[in-house]
Parts: sequence; C-alpha cells; structure tokens
Amino acid sequence: MNYFQMSAAALFEEKAALEQAYQTVKEQKLSLDLSRGKPGREQLDLLTDMLSCVVTAEDCISENGTDCRNYGLLDGLPEAKRLFSDLLSIPEESILVAGNSSLNLMYDAMARAMLYGVVDGETPWGKQGRIRFLCPAPGYDRHFAICESLGIEMIPVKLSAEGPDMDTVERLVASDPSIKGIWCCPKYSNPDGFTYSDDTVRRLAAMKTAAPDFRIFWDNAYAVHELYAEGGDVLLDIFAECRKCGNENRVFYFASTSKISFPGAGVAILAASAENLAQIKKIMGIQTIGHDKINQIRHVKYFQSAENIHRHMQKLAEKIRPKFEIVEEILTRDLKDTGIATWNKPKGGYFVSLYVEEGCAKRTYQLCREAGVVLTNVGATYPYGKDPYDSNIRIAPTFPSNADLRQAMEVLTVCARLAAVEKLLAK
Amino acid sequence: MNYFQMSAAALFEEKAALEQAYQTVKEQKLSLDLSRGKPGREQLDLLTDMLSCVVTAEDCISENGTDCRNYGLLDGLPEAKRLFSDLLSIPEESILVAGNSSLNLMYDAMARAMLYGVVDGETPWGKQGRIRFLCPAPGYDRHFAICESLGIEMIPVKLSAEGPDMDTVERLVASDPSIKGIWCCPKYSNPDGFTYSDDTVRRLAAMKTAAPDFRIFWDNAYAVHELYAEGGDVLLDIFAECRKCGNENRVFYFASTSKISFPGAGVAILAASAENLAQIKKIMGIQTIGHDKINQIRHVKYFQSAENIHRHMQKLAEKIRPKFEIVEEILTRDLKDTGIATWNKPKGGYFVSLYVEEGCAKRTYQLCREAGVVLTNVGATYPYGKDPYDSNIRIAPTFPSNADLRQAMEVLTVCARLAAVEKLLAK
Repeated sequence: MNYFQMSAAALFEEKAALEQAYQTVKEQKLSLDLSRGKPGREQLDLLTDMLSCVVTAEDCISENGTDCRNYGLLDGLPEAKRLFSDLLSIPEESILVAGNSSLNLMYDAMARAMLYGVVDGETPWGKQGRIRFLCPAPGYDRHFAICESLGIEMIPVKLSAEGPDMDTVERLVASDPSIKGIWCCPKYSNPDGFTYSDDTVRRLAAMKTAAPDFRIFWDNAYAVHELYAEGGDVLLDIFAECRKCGNENRVFYFASTSKISFPGAGVAILAASAENLAQIKKIMGIQTIGHDKINQIRHVKYFQSAENIHRHMQKLAEKIRPKFEIVEEILTRDLKDTGIATWNKPKGGYFVSLYVEEGCAKRTYQLCREAGVVLTNVGATYPYGKDPYDSNIRIAPTFPSNADLRQAMEVLTVCARLAAVEKLLAK
Repeated sequence: MNYFQMSAAALFEEKAALEQAYQTVKEQKLSLDLSRGKPGREQLDLLTDMLSCVVTAEDCISENGTDCRNYGLLDGLPEAKRLFSDLLSIPEESILVAGNSSLNLMYDAMARAMLYGVVDGETPWGKQGRIRFLCPAPGYDRHFAICESLGIEMIPVKLSAEGPDMDTVERLVASDPSIKGIWCCPKYSNPDGFTYSDDTVRRLAAMKTAAPDFRIFWDNAYAVHELYAEGGDVLLDIFAECRKCGNENRVFYFASTSKISFPGAGVAILAASAENLAQIKKIMGIQTIGHDKINQIRHVKYFQSAENIHRHMQKLAEKIRPKFEIVEEILTRDLKDTGIATWNKPKGGYFVSLYVEEGCAKRTYQLCREAGVVLTNVGATYPYGKDPYDSNIRIAPTFPSNADLRQAMEVLTVCARLAAVEKLLAK
C-alpha cells in the first residue's frame, strides 16, 4: 500500500510491524555486504581455463617480431590492439594497450593533464588556477576521488536515462574556460545502468567549449557487459561523432577486461586521436618502457576473437542475471506499492541504483549497518560524497551468493520502509 | 704502444693503418647494436619453465585469504613481500609489491611529489618554484629523463668507484633547500658498475639537508645481478643507516625482477618507511585498485625462495659472463697500451663504461654509426645528454650474440683509436 495515502494510524501500525521485523533480523547477527562491485567466485571460476592457458616461448613472438618477454612496445601488441578494435569498434591505430587497470590509465591521464597539459592547451591544468570538471551524478565514486585528490573542483550535473543533462552541460562548458572536462560512464552507467542516447553523444561531440583543452573522460567500463543475449543497449560511436565535428582530440576513451577476465589481472586500454596518442606516448615513454605484454598475449591466445568474448560474457551473465533478478524481485515485492522508492532495471553493467524516499538514504544505511548489512557509503555516488537528496543507494549484487543477496535485500527493504515511515510520521 | 708517446710520423702511420682497417670494416655493411641494455634471447629461454608454470585457482588464494584473481590488496601479496624481503633484506612491512616496472614506480613517485609533496614537506614540489635534483653522473638516462620531463633542474655530481662525490653532495644539500633529492643506482651502477662504499651510504643517510622534504631515489636495479658466484660487491643497508640517524623517511627504494624473470612481465617493488608508505598508499589507492596479483603469485610459485633466485641468477650469469669477458678481452687487446681509454671491469650489473680520449666520444660514436655499429647515444649517461668531457661510452653487452658482440667491439676499438689519433694530430 502506498505510504503517502496511509493515515497516521495506519503508518503507526506499519512502523510497529517494521520495527518488529527489523528486531527479528537484528537478532540473526547477519554479516552481509551489498557494496562490492566485483565479480563473485563462481564468475572467476569460469576462467580457470585461462589460468592454465600456457603462453609458450613461440607465442611470445608477436606478429611484428617483438619478443613479448623482453622490453619495449609501449603501446601494446598489434594482436591485442586488433582484439580490442574488433570488440569496441575503435580503429586499431587509436588504441594503446596497457597494464591491468583502466582506473590507473584514467588517473594517469588526469595527472598528465595537471603536470603537462593536453594537446590544444598551452598550459598544464595544474598551472591554470582553479579548474573544474563536470560530474554527471550519480556516478562512479573513484572518478570523483581522482578529481578530489588532484584538487579539481567538481560540478555535479544531473544524470537521467538519456545521459547527463545536456542543456546544463552545454551552457556551462560554453561559458566557463575553467571547466576542463567531464566524466562519462556512457553505457550501463555506474550506478544507474543508463546508456547515453544518440542525441546525448552527438551533443557531447559537437558542443562548443570555452576551454580549448576540454576533455571527455569516456569510461566505457561496461561496453560488452550485457545481462541478456539480445536487446542490449547500443552506444553511439563517440569518436565518429567527434570526427564529424572536427573535435577528434576531445575524447580520452578507457576500457578494460577487468570484468571480462580477471579484475586484478586483466588488460586495460586507452584510445584517443592520433595527436592525443602522440603526446601521451611521449610522456608515457618517460614513465615506463612498456606494459606486461605476456598478459596481453595470454588474453589474445585465450579469447582469440571479439565473438568469443561476447560468448564468454553470456556465460558470465548466466551467473549474474539471477542476482539482478533477485534484486528486482524483492524490490518489487517489498517496495513497489509503497511509493517510497524507485529503481532502475538495467540490461547490463554491475549495479542497481535504488532511490529511497528523499532524506532517508543515510538512515536506511545506518539501519542496515546495525542489522549487519553493509551498503555502499551513502553519498559515494555524488561528488564530495554529498547526495543532495540523501536518496541514492547503490546496490552491487554480483559478489554475494544468491542466498546472501536475497537475505541482504530483504533487510534493505525493511530498513528503507522503516526509514520512510519514520520520516512521514515525523512531519 | 702509448699514443701520447708516439712521434707525429708514427701517429700518421697509425692513422693510415686505422683508416684502412676502418674502410675494410665499412665494406662489410654491418648492422650491430651495443646500445640495448636488455637480456638476450638465450637468457629469456632459461625461463621457459616459468611461462608454463600454471597458477591454479587454488594457488590464487593468498595466505591471507585474498583471491588474487579479484580486485584488491593495493600493496601486494604477503607471499610476494616475503620473497622480496628475503631477497633484498628489507623488512616485509616496508615493501609494496606493484606491477611490472620499477621505472613506472619511480616516475610515479616523482610525479606524486610534484603534485602532492612528500611526508615532511608541506608544499608539493611543483609549487615550490625552481626545484633541483642531484644526478651522480655518469648515470641512467631514464632517471635523468624523468627530471627533465617534469621540469626538475639537474645538478651533475661526479660518480667514482666509491659512489657520488660526497663532499660535493653534502655541501650542496646542506645549503640549498631547492635540492629535493638525489638519484642513486647504488650497486653495479649504470653504466659504471660501481657499488657505493659503506662510507658513502652512511654519509647519504646521515647528511643534513636544507630541504626537509629531501628524498634519495635508491634504484637498486642490480641488487642480485652478480656475474660471479663468489666475491660480488656488498651494499650497505641504507634503511638501517637512515634509521640510526632518525632519517627513515629519506629513502624511496626501488627494485624489480625485470632482469631476473621477464623484462616486460616481471614484478617491481617500492620500499619505504611506514610514514612514506602510508602517504603513498593513500594516493596510489586513488590511482588503482591494485596491481596484477596473479603475476605476483606466479613469481612466488616459480621461484619459491630467495636462494632459488640467487641460483637462477648464476644460470643467467653463465650466459652473460662470456659477453663481459669478450668486451674485456678486446678492450684490453686493442686499447690497453694506447693510453687513450679507460674502462671498468664490473662484477655485476648490465654495462661496461668506456672512457675514450676526452673530446672523442661523439666522433667515435659517429665513426661506429657509419660502420653499422649502434652505440648508446653519447652523452646519454649525463644530465641533459651533455657529457662535459665528451668521453663516456656505455657498452651494453647482454643483448647481441657473442659473435656479433665480438665484431661490434672490434669496430668500436678501431673507431676509438682513430678518433684519438685524429685529435692528437689536430693539436
């Protein structure tokens, strides 16, 4: 029943019932965790063959003659570039294949911009006084942490099912040269699972920016992370759109196999225009002689083709999909009629984004915590950890077992309802 | 015969003979390379068993319960820390085990200092105006490239068999707070193969620095890289010395298995005091979720113990030692009596450092180049690529085959002699 249509008396009754349910849960001394956006063991076990996929000394000789065991080849193996090119529909020559972490590539790209500036900019960002970044929110806390760590001021922009609010984005970047870029998780966004519309991608590519050295940090973390074999979201090619507008230097594109192969031992890429890559490689060549090419060849040998990766993703989806279904089932069962919460139903990615009654997220978190269920820190999905509505809770369903997940979700819905009733009665 | 004791007529005769020898060499259209400080294929082939050393899903569970396949454990596996601790005699708790490149760790340490500053310093180096670094020279060109890239002014300091000229070092750091650190390759230095004396290490640890945020970048790249089973150089423990003087925050220590296992796919470490590590981990935790732990566990599984690594280094030495002997043999045969060159005879490391007659290194390089023999760029071993004496040539004997090496060395000695005779006759 919709809480907003209940009488005070009925709400008091509901509160008493919820408190009793909550007390019962608390007595179970649970220890559950919905905060960890990482694969579960059963997913990793699907890759055991990759662990035993032996790279021979012969395999180590790349098609261009490079011995992968030795130094060199800063921008990665041609075979690995081709695999990522096929997978992500990016030209091979735009791709730099690196180490195990796309986050590392993003941080380094930002640190480089601070220390050296970027192509089209004469001054390092770190020497331009106050600089700022647009942060579509809710978003990925580690993106925001990079800005905060480097002293880059963050401007939240509302994110909806179409992507960031482009009217606001266009207005801000057109007038303010201190705005140097925007964070984007354009497909199955973290945490909402939204995919930017074609119109949004086109406007991001075409918009006029007051800063000549403006950059889109395009974190396509969930590029091929479909929950269903058919009907997944399709993201427009940002590079092609940028080229049409003569803005090919605008995008730094990131992706990795962290949630395809191993989160700790995958392969990450950076893609960018020729001019950007030339500048990046010049500086990266001071930073390192090269990344782990044996791991690159291991990935090429094991997966062989983009098609095989898509097939593998469906095997992973068979493990993950039931978890998303449990989340959907319990949210629907316990919250749908109450009117106190909304949430997305993503077709891919790693998260479900739950919006509880405004002003109730922190209280819900606290109630969960006291009942032994850990949620992602409330506010983490917003710049500076500040959710202006105190409403968003990121649910990460992939790591717990199905049984643990079900139990944790049931605690969560009790807590969300209890928090809402408390608020309604306090009015 | 000593060139300095020869008459002009005899020198003219020598010149004619050398020119003829040089002409003969040129006609052979050689294509040889003495510039590459990397292992040869026969060394890498000794590690084929490591390529086929399968890490199982069970192996991936670390002794502390971490699943190496998944995210996490920023500072590395406890097993890997212990292996490096045993190998390098550094306490486990001082070690952070990272990715495949110690150069990357060094660059990042410098970039962090520029962007955030270091413990004991309130201001980022990049916000302190002009800052400077001491560069014992000859030294490693990639160290110098990091400073140059980040706009850190370099002050060359003479390096001798005891290490950097400590009178100069102590005088400079005591009076100039803009001097933020010193690059050190303390054992089997690149390119001279010198190992710092105990006295040098003690003075580096104890010296008073005007800058409170002074750091020694201690690149122990050749810590266990002995050419002989017995009688290798012994380097004093810099950490222990620093602790005695209350300067435990002074050292950033780097090492890797790049020339133990695979240059492209080894494991690198950073070691530092607890306070330094706390600051580094805080920032590194923004940069990445963790390094490749599967590669760490692979190294632990394959090598198992420091003792096995020492044994393995002797197998590598059996491949490398003959190369150093060829260099020594030909330098002695062709140059010893001439008085125009000196060189070291290292007991480990990767290089032989040849000092030709002053003012003749560039000419020697050019003559070699025209005869199809590539040397390390002359000057590369000095800050800004400027050898004040135009004398030092870094010989990297490990990569070519023994036959190629012998031929290249014979070209080099002809060129060095010819350049010297030209100079003597031009006086």
